[in-house]
Amino acid sequence: MSTSPPASRLAVDVEGDDTFTVSAHRVDTYRIHLAEGSTEDGLSSQLAALAAQLGAPEIVIVIDTGAAEHHLGAVTAAVVGTGLPCRTVSVPAGESSKSPRGLKNLITALRTHGVTRRTLLLGVGGGVVCDLVTAAASLYMRGVPYALVPTTVLAQVDAAIGGKGGVDFGAAKNLLGAFHHPAGVYLDPSLTATLPDRQIRAGLAEVIKVALIANPSLFATLEKSADPLPTGQAMTSIVRHAVEAKLLLLSPDPYEQKDLRRPLNLGHCIGHPYEAATGYRILHGEAVAAGIAVAAAHTFLTDESTTLEDRDRILNLLAAYHLPTTIPDKLRDTVWEGMDTVRRIRNGPLHLVLPHRPGHCTITDDIDRPSYDKALNDLAARP
Amino acid sequence: MSTSPPASRLAVDVEGDDTFTVSAHRVDTYRIHLAEGSTEDGLSSQLAALAAQLGAPEIVIVIDTGAAEHHLGAVTAAVVGTGLPCRTVSVPAGESSKSPRGLKNLITALRTHGVTRRTLLLGVGGGVVCDLVTAAASLYMRGVPYALVPTTVLAQVDAAIGGKGGVDFGAAKNLLGAFHHPAGVYLDPSLTATLPDRQIRAGLAEVIKVALIANPSLFATLEKSADPLPTGQAMTSIVRHAVEAKLLLLSPDPYEQKDLRRPLNLGHCIGHPYEAATGYRILHGEAVAAGIAVAAAHTFLTDESTTLEDRDRILNLLAAYHLPTTIPDKLRDTVWEGMDTVRRIRNGPLHLVLPHRPGHCTITDDIDRPSYDKALNDLAARP
Repeated sequence: MSTSPPASRLAVDVEGDDTFTVSAHRVDTYRIHLAEGSTEDGLSSQLAALAAQLGAPEIVIVIDTGAAEHHLGAVTAAVVGTGLPCRTVSVPAGESSKSPRGLKNLITALRTHGVTRRTLLLGVGGGVVCDLVTAAASLYMRGVPYALVPTTVLAQVDAAIGGKGGVDFGAAKNLLGAFHHPAGVYLDPSLTATLPDRQIRAGLAEVIKVALIANPSLFATLEKSADPLPTGQAMTSIVRHAVEAKLLLLSPDPYEQKDLRRPLNLGHCIGHPYEAATGYRILHGEAVAAGIAVAAAHTFLTDESTTLEDRDRILNLLAAYHLPTTIPDKLRDTVWEGMDTVRRIRNGPLHLVLPHRPGHCTITDDIDRPSYDKALNDLAARP
Repeated sequence: MSTSPPASRLAVDVEGDDTFTVSAHRVDTYRIHLAEGSTEDGLSSQLAALAAQLGAPEIVIVIDTGAAEHHLGAVTAAVVGTGLPCRTVSVPAGESSKSPRGLKNLITALRTHGVTRRTLLLGVGGGVVCDLVTAAASLYMRGVPYALVPTTVLAQVDAAIGGKGGVDFGAAKNLLGAFHHPAGVYLDPSLTATLPDRQIRAGLAEVIKVALIANPSLFATLEKSADPLPTGQAMTSIVRHAVEAKLLLLSPDPYEQKDLRRPLNLGHCIGHPYEAATGYRILHGEAVAAGIAVAAAHTFLTDESTTLEDRDRILNLLAAYHLPTTIPDKLRDTVWEGMDTVRRIRNGPLHLVLPHRPGHCTITDDIDRPSYDKALNDLAARP
């Protein structure tokens, strides 16, 4: 930064004897670092610099048991290399940690470890850990600093970007949460090399999503990178463009204060209920892919300017990554009911995002049941 | 507001191939309305205007059982008068509601009532309800709008001002929480007329605090208003000046991002451990008063420019409101141990606020045990 960032402040306007108008301005400034291999080479000095800037006297790693198997050694070495005391809290891998109980367990662990307002938390893992650590760091002492080392493609391009924490509450996904920005994010695409291909593909579904919304050249890159799956510098470049696209899409309304018509919801209005309908047996990115496919089919059916080629370009890219391009017949009703539940909770329409072609999406109020069935029928009829 | 307020946004700076600098700007603008009798006359139209501005289709009152006894009728009438659907959630009176369980119960109730992202919550009660509703509104769906009708002096001048939510976690007061600004605050000093005198006096301790820090003429007003206790327009004027003083003191660092050296902590470094040492049998404001007294005694002992008259002016004002001006001998050690715990949690000094005279406070690093004992001995030796 060439200049010092503007600071948070309250502006108070007194009107007459009886009204104060308060404008609360908050500014959080942080860096997202991206470099292949940085966990082994670079993370330690970056964490040391961050801790010095924050005045953090110690670092507490929060890692899920899955990520720990592959990455705890390297991350611990990086933290120990800072010269600061390092402690580790482990959380069970899987969505069940993203619950009020999981949050309470993590908070209890932070308290047991004597975490202070100055302690730097370091979340290491996939989407669950990113969402959970963000939520816990937001709540604990009304906000403590945290950094993230996301270890999955999905977390690197999506969950770790934007400062959005979330915890499920029973069947309600992300019913609880907060916006709380990290103090630093460290993206090392080489960490994702240990993932099963299926998880890489599912993570790339979120990349396809942002490319489709906002980056046609990234979309074209993805078309050329499906087989074999991207690795090394190719993956690093994909992550870079996906992160940049997501940040730009977040920039007009980073706290979701304005409205629910968000292009980033592409694939999610239908994907979320689909994921739930499978009992979370499919991966989040797979559900999003199916949601994009249904939205693309519906777009073709309702917009004259969208051609069959436009639609098929989208469906073919999803298929090239072995991602779902429809919803199974037997779940059709359950998914529709899930969409209805969201309508009820919102007390309003779904605001379905329609992908016309790379770089061009629109938002429609909603989809009715006959159109939903027609889109699914068309997808089922594809060769 | 003459101009439309600035909006939240992300500013993203790309540096080379490997670093994004993100600056997240958040702006929350809202009004605090103050008028004696406004619950009966004015609240309804103000709530209707607020709900219209927010697009809120309904209002859910969250009230504690104590406040409900005196105020639920008037508040319900005001909400019903908006023409919007009104539902009520009741929470048990008392500090036990400010717990993870109390928070979970409230969240569950909001979910049971089908609260959406557009629902306006209306917290009605004392400090516990203000802190709890702020925390719940912050977490639920990553933030829903809420307004507050504080019903105690303490809540009107302190808890409802600043957007600070808090929940205790076992013995750790306010260990969990968030900053989440209300959409509106409605201060009606006539609501406090139903409070026992002891509660009014304890609330005025926080007024004495802000007057001592930042408003000498409010301090002088309080000196003339102790007997009988202020009511009517006198109380309204005191609340107005206290709110304004608190907002101005919050303005440089409303999210407590900068440091722990906050003048508003006056009386709290010692008051909080004292309150805990009594098992919360004394009121928060009473504990703060004792904390101010000890700090004033220590200031006189350590600062040559502070005279005995300066010190006694502070102690006499506290005494005039029948507030404690010392800590009982039998709790001296327990309070000291509580201060030590805070030092450990912070991993640093207490940053004791020293009141020299109205309008002049300083902050010292800490107080050592001999100085603490000397201050208490001096207070005990007063006639």
